[in-house]
Amino acid sequence: MNIPDKVVNRLTLYHFILDDLRDDEEYISSTKIAQLLKIDNSQVRKDLKYVDNQGKCRVGYNTKELKKRIEESLGFKKTKDAFVVGAGNLGSALAKYDGFKDYGLNILAMFDKDTKKTGTVINGKEVFDISKVSHLASKLGVEVAILTVPKENAQAAANYLAGAGIKYIWNFTTCVLDLPKDVKVWNENLIGSFLQFIVSDKEK
Amino acid sequence: MNIPDKVVNRLTLYHFILDDLRDDEEYISSTKIAQLLKIDNSQVRKDLKYVDNQGKCRVGYNTKELKKRIEESLGFKKTKDAFVVGAGNLGSALAKYDGFKDYGLNILAMFDKDTKKTGTVINGKEVFDISKVSHLASKLGVEVAILTVPKENAQAAANYLAGAGIKYIWNFTTCVLDLPKDVKVWNENLIGSFLQFIVSDKEK
Repeated sequence: MNIPDKVVNRLTLYHFILDDLRDDEEYISSTKIAQLLKIDNSQVRKDLKYVDNQGKCRVGYNTKELKKRIEESLGFKKTKDAFVVGAGNLGSALAKYDGFKDYGLNILAMFDKDTKKTGTVINGKEVFDISKVSHLASKLGVEVAILTVPKENAQAAANYLAGAGIKYIWNFTTCVLDLPKDVKVWNENLIGSFLQFIVSDKEK
Repeated sequence: MNIPDKVVNRLTLYHFILDDLRDDEEYISSTKIAQLLKIDNSQVRKDLKYVDNQGKCRVGYNTKELKKRIEESLGFKKTKDAFVVGAGNLGSALAKYDGFKDYGLNILAMFDKDTKKTGTVINGKEVFDISKVSHLASKLGVEVAILTVPKENAQAAANYLAGAGIKYIWNFTTCVLDLPKDVKVWNENLIGSFLQFIVSDKEK
């Protein structure tokens, strides 16, 4: 089933909530979830229909069951291997964050063109020279790259990744990448996110 | 005018494109923008109506004028001062990123409870003990906090920030915060973002 973007986003948040419950909290109501996220109760119930779980009247949703259903629907267990391209501050921070693995994102290695960085190991991930990306992507079957190079190097790095067989680029730079149609780009756009928050003065 | 979230996001991307043009590129067409972002031309034209700019037939939009209009509409010049709370990997990476300032986000200081971090200076931003946040927020009139503490400390830190008069929390943790109604929370939710990208296999 095709789950709309905003629903995927909220389902992840519901999972965070379920993950934080104590072991003895067997049921949770849509009202409780709605109240924590300051959204409508009806929205929560509508979203949860996508994961095909039916809350029991007056009791609520079985927390373990609901967690499992969200994990299945969003593919947490279908692990995707990825490379971080750009071993600067943000790239290193993402490589050091172990939480991604629980949600199916497995960072295998990092790449940079700076010889002061190549050969170092960040949280168990070796930093290779960018010229090695093609060989390693094909050897390890990696299709996902997390792009965290400086803006001025972003297009060149992305071209290189496209040539290396990378199919998904999670773009943390503020460069809008011009790439062949078969390479999917997701612009993380933290600045847009901040502006949505502050300019529109709303919650998400 | 109230600009929808998705439009704010795309307008930021249009601004990134305009920002990357050479000085002699006086005009840009909606087709060119649409092609770079792999979206519909009609979408671009619709979005740009929010910033009240009219492209000239066959010539396109005046790039300098359009850039200025987007900046005004999204409030790039209305700088918001902010604190980073949590001087770990991600918090430090955000503090080291100077690009935010151009878009109106000015990080003044950082906070942590780790005495190994307090007193240090990261990219010109001093790391203070978290107990100082209330005094400094009121002294400097800061209402925005970027929350990058470990998940298990997130709720406690957020409670503390709410008590210190912080009105906006940009939450990078995977903890869903339970806070009074007058504190706005924006969950950055990078994991949800990744899942939207990979699970739905689409572009943004």
